[in-house]
Amino acid sequence: MKILVLNGPNLNLLGEREPTVYGDNSLQSINERLSAKAEKMGFQLDFFQTNSEGGIIDKLHEARRDCAGVILNAGAYTHYSYAIRDAIAAIKIPVIEVHLSNVDNREEFRKNSVIAPVCRGSISGFGEYSYALALDALSYISGDEK
Amino acid sequence: MKILVLNGPNLNLLGEREPTVYGDNSLQSINERLSAKAEKMGFQLDFFQTNSEGGIIDKLHEARRDCAGVILNAGAYTHYSYAIRDAIAAIKIPVIEVHLSNVDNREEFRKNSVIAPVCRGSISGFGEYSYALALDALSYISGDEK
Amino acid sequence: MKILVLNGPNLNLLGEREPTVYGDNSLQSINERLSAKAEKMGFQLDFFQTNSEGGIIDKLHEARRDCAGVILNAGAYTHYSYAIRDAIAAIKIPVIEVHLSNVDNREEFRKNSVIAPVCRGSISGFGEYSYALALDALSYISGDEK
Amino acid sequence: MKILVLNGPNLNLLGEREPTVYGDNSLQSINERLSAKAEKMGFQLDFFQTNSEGGIIDKLHEARRDCAGVILNAGAYTHYSYAIRDAIAAIKIPVIEVHLSNVDNREEFRKNSVIAPVCRGSISGFGEYSYALALDALSYISGDEK
Amino acid sequence: MKILVLNGPNLNLLGEREPTVYGDNSLQSINERLSAKAEKMGFQLDFFQTNSEGGIIDKLHEARRDCAGVILNAGAYTHYSYAIRDAIAAIKIPVIEVHLSNVDNREEFRKNSVIAPVCRGSISGFGEYSYALALDALSYISGDEK
Amino acid sequence: MKILVLNGPNLNLLGEREPTVYGDNSLQSINERLSAKAEKMGFQLDFFQTNSEGGIIDKLHEARRDCAGVILNAGAYTHYSYAIRDAIAAIKIPVIEVHLSNVDNREEFRKNSVIAPVCRGSISGFGEYSYALALDALSYISGDEK
Amino acid sequence: MKILVLNGPNLNLLGEREPTVYGDNSLQSINERLSAKAEKMGFQLDFFQTNSEGGIIDKLHEARRDCAGVILNAGAYTHYSYAIRDAIAAIKIPVIEVHLSNVDNREEFRKNSVIAPVCRGSISGFGEYSYALALDALSYISGDEK
Amino acid sequence: MKILVLNGPNLNLLGEREPTVYGDNSLQSINERLSAKAEKMGFQLDFFQTNSEGGIIDKLHEARRDCAGVILNAGAYTHYSYAIRDAIAAIKIPVIEVHLSNVDNREEFRKNSVIAPVCRGSISGFGEYSYALALDALSYISGDEK
Amino acid sequence: MKILVLNGPNLNLLGEREPTVYGDNSLQSINERLSAKAEKMGFQLDFFQTNSEGGIIDKLHEARRDCAGVILNAGAYTHYSYAIRDAIAAIKIPVIEVHLSNVDNREEFRKNSVIAPVCRGSISGFGEYSYALALDALSYISGDEK
Amino acid sequence: MKILVLNGPNLNLLGEREPTVYGDNSLQSINERLSAKAEKMGFQLDFFQTNSEGGIIDKLHEARRDCAGVILNAGAYTHYSYAIRDAIAAIKIPVIEVHLSNVDNREEFRKNSVIAPVCRGSISGFGEYSYALALDALSYISGDEK
Amino acid sequence: MKILVLNGPNLNLLGEREPTVYGDNSLQSINERLSAKAEKMGFQLDFFQTNSEGGIIDKLHEARRDCAGVILNAGAYTHYSYAIRDAIAAIKIPVIEVHLSNVDNREEFRKNSVIAPVCRGSISGFGEYSYALALDALSYISGDEK
Amino acid sequence: MKILVLNGPNLNLLGEREPTVYGDNSLQSINERLSAKAEKMGFQLDFFQTNSEGGIIDKLHEARRDCAGVILNAGAYTHYSYAIRDAIAAIKIPVIEVHLSNVDNREEFRKNSVIAPVCRGSISGFGEYSYALALDALSYISGDEK
Repeated sequence: MKILVLNGPNLNLLGEREPTVYGDNSLQSINERLSAKAEKMGFQLDFFQTNSEGGIIDKLHEARRDCAGVILNAGAYTHYSYAIRDAIAAIKIPVIEVHLSNVDNREEFRKNSVIAPVCRGSISGFGEYSYALALDALSYISGDEK
Repeated sequence: MKILVLNGPNLNLLGEREPTVYGDNSLQSINERLSAKAEKMGFQLDFFQTNSEGGIIDKLHEARRDCAGVILNAGAYTHYSYAIRDAIAAIKIPVIEVHLSNVDNREEFRKNSVIAPVCRGSISGFGEYSYALALDALSYISGDEK
Repeated sequence: MKILVLNGPNLNLLGEREPTVYGDNSLQSINERLSAKAEKMGFQLDFFQTNSEGGIIDKLHEARRDCAGVILNAGAYTHYSYAIRDAIAAIKIPVIEVHLSNVDNREEFRKNSVIAPVCRGSISGFGEYSYALALDALSYISGDEK
Repeated sequence: MKILVLNGPNLNLLGEREPTVYGDNSLQSINERLSAKAEKMGFQLDFFQTNSEGGIIDKLHEARRDCAGVILNAGAYTHYSYAIRDAIAAIKIPVIEVHLSNVDNREEFRKNSVIAPVCRGSISGFGEYSYALALDALSYISGDEK
Repeated sequence: MKILVLNGPNLNLLGEREPTVYGDNSLQSINERLSAKAEKMGFQLDFFQTNSEGGIIDKLHEARRDCAGVILNAGAYTHYSYAIRDAIAAIKIPVIEVHLSNVDNREEFRKNSVIAPVCRGSISGFGEYSYALALDALSYISGDEK
Repeated sequence: MKILVLNGPNLNLLGEREPTVYGDNSLQSINERLSAKAEKMGFQLDFFQTNSEGGIIDKLHEARRDCAGVILNAGAYTHYSYAIRDAIAAIKIPVIEVHLSNVDNREEFRKNSVIAPVCRGSISGFGEYSYALALDALSYISGDEK
Repeated sequence: MKILVLNGPNLNLLGEREPTVYGDNSLQSINERLSAKAEKMGFQLDFFQTNSEGGIIDKLHEARRDCAGVILNAGAYTHYSYAIRDAIAAIKIPVIEVHLSNVDNREEFRKNSVIAPVCRGSISGFGEYSYALALDALSYISGDEK
Repeated sequence: MKILVLNGPNLNLLGEREPTVYGDNSLQSINERLSAKAEKMGFQLDFFQTNSEGGIIDKLHEARRDCAGVILNAGAYTHYSYAIRDAIAAIKIPVIEVHLSNVDNREEFRKNSVIAPVCRGSISGFGEYSYALALDALSYISGDEK
Repeated sequence: MKILVLNGPNLNLLGEREPTVYGDNSLQSINERLSAKAEKMGFQLDFFQTNSEGGIIDKLHEARRDCAGVILNAGAYTHYSYAIRDAIAAIKIPVIEVHLSNVDNREEFRKNSVIAPVCRGSISGFGEYSYALALDALSYISGDEK
Repeated sequence: MKILVLNGPNLNLLGEREPTVYGDNSLQSINERLSAKAEKMGFQLDFFQTNSEGGIIDKLHEARRDCAGVILNAGAYTHYSYAIRDAIAAIKIPVIEVHLSNVDNREEFRKNSVIAPVCRGSISGFGEYSYALALDALSYISGDEK
Repeated sequence: MKILVLNGPNLNLLGEREPTVYGDNSLQSINERLSAKAEKMGFQLDFFQTNSEGGIIDKLHEARRDCAGVILNAGAYTHYSYAIRDAIAAIKIPVIEVHLSNVDNREEFRKNSVIAPVCRGSISGFGEYSYALALDALSYISGDEK
Repeated sequence: MKILVLNGPNLNLLGEREPTVYGDNSLQSINERLSAKAEKMGFQLDFFQTNSEGGIIDKLHEARRDCAGVILNAGAYTHYSYAIRDAIAAIKIPVIEVHLSNVDNREEFRKNSVIAPVCRGSISGFGEYSYALALDALSYISGDEK
């Protein structure tokens, strides 16, 4: 079973960008640890990072054909991209919203997620472990829906 | 006379995406029916769909050189893309805003169109027939401006 | 098949009132051209103009008995008459909202239509041709519902 | 003792309009049951329905001369008619606001009543029995004020 | 030269309604004193009072043919009737907004006048003398525009 | 058939607290008169007053087992207790919202009821008689649902 | 009887500043015409102009000792000076708010007057004649209060 | 190591209350499954459910002495209890916010969490599995802090 | 003369909780110093701390019988408890609002006190000395009212 | 040790202005009583009153050189003078905000203090005794900071 | 050519006030460096600092007679002084808005400039170099307008 | 030293698009003049224009490796792109926000810049000279940071 791990704008700078907020690990090292965990669970992960809103939408559309679910960190698009929201609503596979930081104790504009209402669930504040939890959640959902 | 029919994010999934809202027809079949109608009216249609905000802007810029008007369904960008609004204002050919569904009886955020103030007119709620009406409107405007 | 063309407050002054916004044609001349078009399409038009909110509601109620649809330009009532909104919702025939001007590029208060959510669709910005497009739309809807 | 039962816009369509919200009974049948109840209580009911805002004001003015109270369902005018509010404040007899449905669990705009602050009390959500309760309330108030 | 003195909802109850706010004089006695003053100034006054929003609009339309100006106390319609606003903007004669009371030190909703932006000027807070001042203002405007 | 009469914060001070707003009668005397009325109607009343939000929730939960309905005056909790709202929504018996005073003509914050959308109906402004009307309403509802 | 004519910020530039909004006449020439009128009415005018908020307050305080009323054009302070508002409320003589232009059809921030609620009345939109009307109003008020 | 699983208002009705939103399982059965999982991980769970806001605060205070972390579903208090927020901020152990349902796609008021800014992280939308994920998260955090 | 010193949620953690904001002293040591001062002034202090909103209301009700005044630090309930506000308004003895910290230079939500309008006065920002000042204020008020 | 007692707009009218709100005593008599108290405490008071916003700023700047603290009643400037706020933040001596009346139970605009966030503390509602408490507070702060 | 460098409230404390925000240099030393630069460019600078809103307006009026432009740092008045805004609009010479700090990354209230819409341009965030850039901008504008 | 001059959506149409707002010069001619100036200052400019939000982010990321600073005109993205804001905050080189027009005297939505808080400074309103000033500012900052 394939799962898409989709990271949005500025997440390519992880490890380098504001480490007190986002941690010291690069996106690649996070992905590697996540892959290792996924393998044990019987999932194959498809990683994709883009700074483009349209690119996120394209990738979500693609995923509807061959993925069992999506782990999505939409970065700042989380707070205003109704186009990504529509893409999530348009595809039928479950999408989990994740954030590395606790988005609620930062700037005011980060308190509102326009994609949350169409995601299956949401996990934030656990650093890279947010992705690991999302993977568990997708596994649970798959089992639950059998 | 060439007319650009420009469709924005998620409209490539027409027919498949939430059919109770957007209908059963694919974008391609809609385009074909619209082309047939245009041909009878003496118009040539140029179809373009993209999920990218910048892609919509690029295409609008291009259209200012060789199109007599634009039929634009900007999808969810309708509600926040001031960049698309500026592109419409910057080109001189008439742009008609169309929507398949009645955007006013859905979520609150869909009630506000940031592009409407710079469009020539707006048509929504008639399914694929919204495009056909927009074509008639552009034809009327052309005649009117001769 | 009868269709009601219902015009609200101040539309009796068309041709005389702010011609740069609303055009030079009187309501009567507009109605005549619309009648000619309707006749060709096999529709009979019933014209009514009133400055009274209650009058618009009464007329909508009446129309539910003998009309196949309504073309409604509710003028400024568009922006606050929840009573007209309720009347539209109460009757079962399709009502099309039309506006001569592009209401979205005028005063802020004109951006909100309280009747749009209960209308079938909405057309604005094409001068008197907005009515003609609404007629086509009603014709399309009738065919669609057969 | 005479009491005015004053119904506003669209209430003439009761029984026919959105029966899941407003019930199956026509305004006439409701009025008849209410009349029967009033007769037993020693009240004479004066029924009036109009879709006109000015008509409601006129009727309220009239009632101040010969009625002991008013049962008012102002329909959608409830939410914006400051003119009706002023009429209620201007007359000295008690006015009871009634609604068939629970207006608070419908659209957002129905949550605000601009007439409530000048009414004696308010009853909503009990279908036609809201009127019956208002009649009891007026009877109680009369006794209370003796 | 004819001038229309147009009074809106509930002003027929003057003298009777909340005398601490609106004073003890009936509309008729106010009109008589105003007429006497107008006669000395060479004006003929046309008095009209209605509780109907549509009635105010109709009367404003009429006035555009044979009156040199309008003194308008739109009552509570002042605060929400965009339809009356459009009527004032549509006719070319000057309209003066008057209020008996100081509308700004009453309820919050009375602080907003939707008609003020299209009136020539505004006078409030002087009881019946507000009308007299408006008459002087119209006289001044006429002279000014010769 | 048992009915719970549930009074919230500060209602224990009735008769003593701001008598011009809430009347001169103590809660006990009100309850006695209500009991007498209930007995005639074949209902048994269970009275409970608490200043605790959690206490109201506990009591609502209890009532779902052995009561046919609840008459609830939630006092100031009416305006912000989403927890009580959830309790009302969670139990299946009808809950009627009552208020002694006309909450809409007092402070701004009292105009919003967060519990109204999940109550069956609402009655306010009739002093202690609000409870009596609620009892009639519950009786009506019971009959209606048989 | 002495009356203070108090002009606030930027009114010293009258005749020079945006003449399409404020007219061609200098403050001095306006004052002279107003003085001539006042003399005929038996009033003595005390003119004062200052750009200082504190200066307006000082002058209002002074006026309470020897003036029968104040004609106040507070310029832009009208829209935010709660300190001037308090000064008006603190003195017992009547203060009339005047504006040369129709402040309601200009920028949004000019729609709100924080001093209006404590002024006796308000006159705007008649150019320099606004002052003349205010003089008449003060004369009327004086007579009224004898 | 002890962990407090703290459930707030109405969660005692799980399995019975709105099962389409909250699922069919009772709180007890959820707790049992969670305990089994915890045991394997070497954690001891302390379960507490209360409908009282103060009770939640008391329990959080207690936990600061003998628990390594808290899994908190504050129910509707999530949206307005600044007192619970202060309690979370006052204790030093990590608190994880959990919700059974996706709170963002329900009523508007559920979109705002006043406790999220002071929680370590947040998990919502996975039914009872939200608790299991929170347990994993606490385990991760503990390891992380060694 | 007895005075109630009533502390709300989380104040039991004083000295331990965020000492940079609230200081190093425990509630008990603060109370002891305050008692010593009161004794010298001839007052007897009754201390009570609770995390429960209902508990604060109960205690305020009690105090109305045997206390000359209340010093109230309602903690976070200050910002939303309309029920506590009603309790303060319901009892006739003076209540002084105190805060240890300057609540206005912290989070936005702490700027609004819903209890301030019904308290006699308010003191904040002086650490434990805020209580001492409140004691002086109550002493002053008592003398003032003799 | 010198302390500045700085009073803002309209406070020179104390005793004369709205005595039901502000009391019967003149500013001079208040100052005299305050001076007597200060002398006993070993403080020398420097009194200053001005209606000018700039004058308050100038005086605050001066005070930074030779005063140990400031007792500031900024009158209505409290609610909008960000310039005074900046002056308080710019000087290093403690500034105590005082108000005679309970500003929170008056007009809405008085609920917001833009200077409170940069003051050391705030005292309101005790009439002239608010100043005396502020003096005690400054004395306490001085001792505290030794 | 003369240019006015006009500094508003609290800028006289530069170098002393919050040096981490505003830098270490005194206004005088900034002015000297600016003068040196201006001299080379052929400009003569007229420096003025005042804490008074009216003083800023007076100075702007003066400048219209003999200055070619104004460099204005209006300090906190930037955010609410519509009177200064009117003064800028009233004079015809270009006014450049400058700020030492990046006003947009400080308190919320500093994000809104009420004077920006009537200034020629705006420069902020470069410390004292903001003034130097404004000087260049005025020089450019002068050349541009020759 | 290399500096990136980054232009966002629709700026490729400069010279052609709304010349009364944006001037007659093409982006290329502006860039050439800017290059000439830079060369004299010892800077090398890297020009990039894109209509794509993601493209702007990609380019900002790139610049962090080899540029000393960025001059950014983000066009309409300025007003809503939190993703670009995050990119600016993520890179460590200084970014200067520039605008050709005075964005504050145009549409309301242009008054808010979501990127300003993370830019080093902001310059607007000087046409193409805004870029030249930004170049000077970057040069100043570089020297300042040595």
